[in-house]
Amino acid sequence: MSTFFVRPEVAALKPYSAGKSIEEVRREYGLTRIIKLASNENPLGPSPRALQALREAAEGVNIYPEGPSTALREALGARWGVGPDWIFVGNGSDEIFRLLATTYLRRGDRVVVPRPSFPVYAGASALMGAQVDAVPLKDGAMDLPAMAARARGARIVFLCRPNNPTGGVFAAEAFDAFLRAVDPDTLVVLDEAYREYDDTLFDSRAFLAEYPNLIVTRTFSKIYGLAGLRLGYGVGRPGIWQPLYTVREPFSVNRLAQAAGLAALDDHDHLEASRRMNQAGRQFLTAFFREMGLRPWPTQANFVLVDLGRPAAPVFEGLLRRGVVVRLPDPADLPNALRVTVGTEEQNREFVRALTDVLNA
Amino acid sequence: MSTFFVRPEVAALKPYSAGKSIEEVRREYGLTRIIKLASNENPLGPSPRALQALREAAEGVNIYPEGPSTALREALGARWGVGPDWIFVGNGSDEIFRLLATTYLRRGDRVVVPRPSFPVYAGASALMGAQVDAVPLKDGAMDLPAMAARARGARIVFLCRPNNPTGGVFAAEAFDAFLRAVDPDTLVVLDEAYREYDDTLFDSRAFLAEYPNLIVTRTFSKIYGLAGLRLGYGVGRPGIWQPLYTVREPFSVNRLAQAAGLAALDDHDHLEASRRMNQAGRQFLTAFFREMGLRPWPTQANFVLVDLGRPAAPVFEGLLRRGVVVRLPDPADLPNALRVTVGTEEQNREFVRALTDVLNA
Repeated sequence: MSTFFVRPEVAALKPYSAGKSIEEVRREYGLTRIIKLASNENPLGPSPRALQALREAAEGVNIYPEGPSTALREALGARWGVGPDWIFVGNGSDEIFRLLATTYLRRGDRVVVPRPSFPVYAGASALMGAQVDAVPLKDGAMDLPAMAARARGARIVFLCRPNNPTGGVFAAEAFDAFLRAVDPDTLVVLDEAYREYDDTLFDSRAFLAEYPNLIVTRTFSKIYGLAGLRLGYGVGRPGIWQPLYTVREPFSVNRLAQAAGLAALDDHDHLEASRRMNQAGRQFLTAFFREMGLRPWPTQANFVLVDLGRPAAPVFEGLLRRGVVVRLPDPADLPNALRVTVGTEEQNREFVRALTDVLNA
Repeated sequence: MSTFFVRPEVAALKPYSAGKSIEEVRREYGLTRIIKLASNENPLGPSPRALQALREAAEGVNIYPEGPSTALREALGARWGVGPDWIFVGNGSDEIFRLLATTYLRRGDRVVVPRPSFPVYAGASALMGAQVDAVPLKDGAMDLPAMAARARGARIVFLCRPNNPTGGVFAAEAFDAFLRAVDPDTLVVLDEAYREYDDTLFDSRAFLAEYPNLIVTRTFSKIYGLAGLRLGYGVGRPGIWQPLYTVREPFSVNRLAQAAGLAALDDHDHLEASRRMNQAGRQFLTAFFREMGLRPWPTQANFVLVDLGRPAAPVFEGLLRRGVVVRLPDPADLPNALRVTVGTEEQNREFVRALTDVLNA
């Protein structure tokens, strides 16, 4: 152990537990053939246009990135119908959540998050000494009225739609009621990492126009297939982003991520193919789970959370031994559930075979 | 402006002022041909082996990075003669300085930095509410005895060798005396970003073995030519790094940076060619400055700081208008100085022509 004392906020934090990487599973289990359905990546791979742009930009990697991602912000601004100063680009949306916490949270400030949800909201907030108030889901869905009630006096509320790890969404009317109830001094962060997979009607642009305390985040890690490059962005009032430029590392977003992201935005074929494959796959998996007598959560994302009706950890291990990596949610929240990313048709079938084996073993 | 109040530590910070990017100069000055000697990048470009590895890894960018950069840590550990847990990899060494501050600095803790030096040490510390104690250089060199005296009761001391923006180094004996004088509870961070350009005898490995409160950082942004990918690392006791894994964003280091960095480590030809070109270039620039009656600082880095004997800002602007981008240090420290990165032979000659024009205009 170190002789150096860490801050008490750091000592109290749990390390983020990521899905196992293919490299780790290969090492730990001595397997060669591995299917990874653990991290909600795009099984079709990256956008071919993004790959081409990345390869063309590669020779310039001796040069520092353009710090504020200007070209990408301009393209995204045009797409969202806002100026480029409404867009903030991060080294994954993770960095944006971290920067928001570092910029706006004082020790003792209160932050409201749904539970279970993406753990980085709570982690980044706790790191700044904020009090994290986790509001449980209700009937598997985000309890917006309860969150609005708890938001009184809170500095930030984080929401995730579709929610990770459950996959559910809330209706536009419910969100509007939530935003009307929340104090305009409370920052509302709506994480739409999985929005492109969502078939429901929901226009975050309209909410952004109406509520100056709302920001929306998106990522290139999911449907755009660029998780390995690290690229996310936020949309909201310029005054909210401006102080983050002081807090951020000036070159946190690498040069190839900027080039690839810009190209991926125009790759409609890749986007449509990814969306269609995901729709078919989540229907297939949901139907399979029901046939097996298991309980899948309704999902608008690129994953399905399923209640196995028995402890999930041994099933997770059994799948790992068969070379299938899925995600085990925090057992404190969901002891009987597994989250499985929708894969290609072939990967989904292999997962189904492996799960059937494990459950019948 | 935002209706949201930023933390007082953030409000007090100055934004990092980066060297102008080629993209910015092109936009602002309407130029097409631009020579950038502003950010100490490798003018030979990235290691060809790194480029090849990057292109091979590109198709896998839909997959999240391997979080802790295990393969790279193993290779670096072998090279440094330490275990992989002695190595910590960051999204540039910038991220490592930020994480050290976030992990170890409480509000009111004292941090000692040299001045002028790389501004991120002070910025990351101030962001956590630390008191930053800047010790001026003495006769153009780092004043280690004064820094050791001020280090009493400090939580962290940052050192930079060769120093940025001056290029100077301190002797091994002076560093040994410094480390003996500093309390073992004070963390000493030695930033060796420019070490590969330094011809002096200095073995940071020996110091690491002897002083458990020392860590050394290196980067792939300089001689390895990977600034655009963002990759740096630190070497030191595992107990110092371990809490940083809780604080860091789990996937901050992108997949292509890891692959390219691993390949660049073995590219001895690129490394040697880069070193030789830099030695010749800094001699050429230093001799030119002396001939012009200007005062260059002695440098072991890939840049030369030069005292023009008159305000540097108008000269900097004159160079910009001629398409030559160099770096203007903080005028509060060095009002008469420019920092110029050593370029290719041709770039150095063009810079010399442009500077002669500007000074004679």
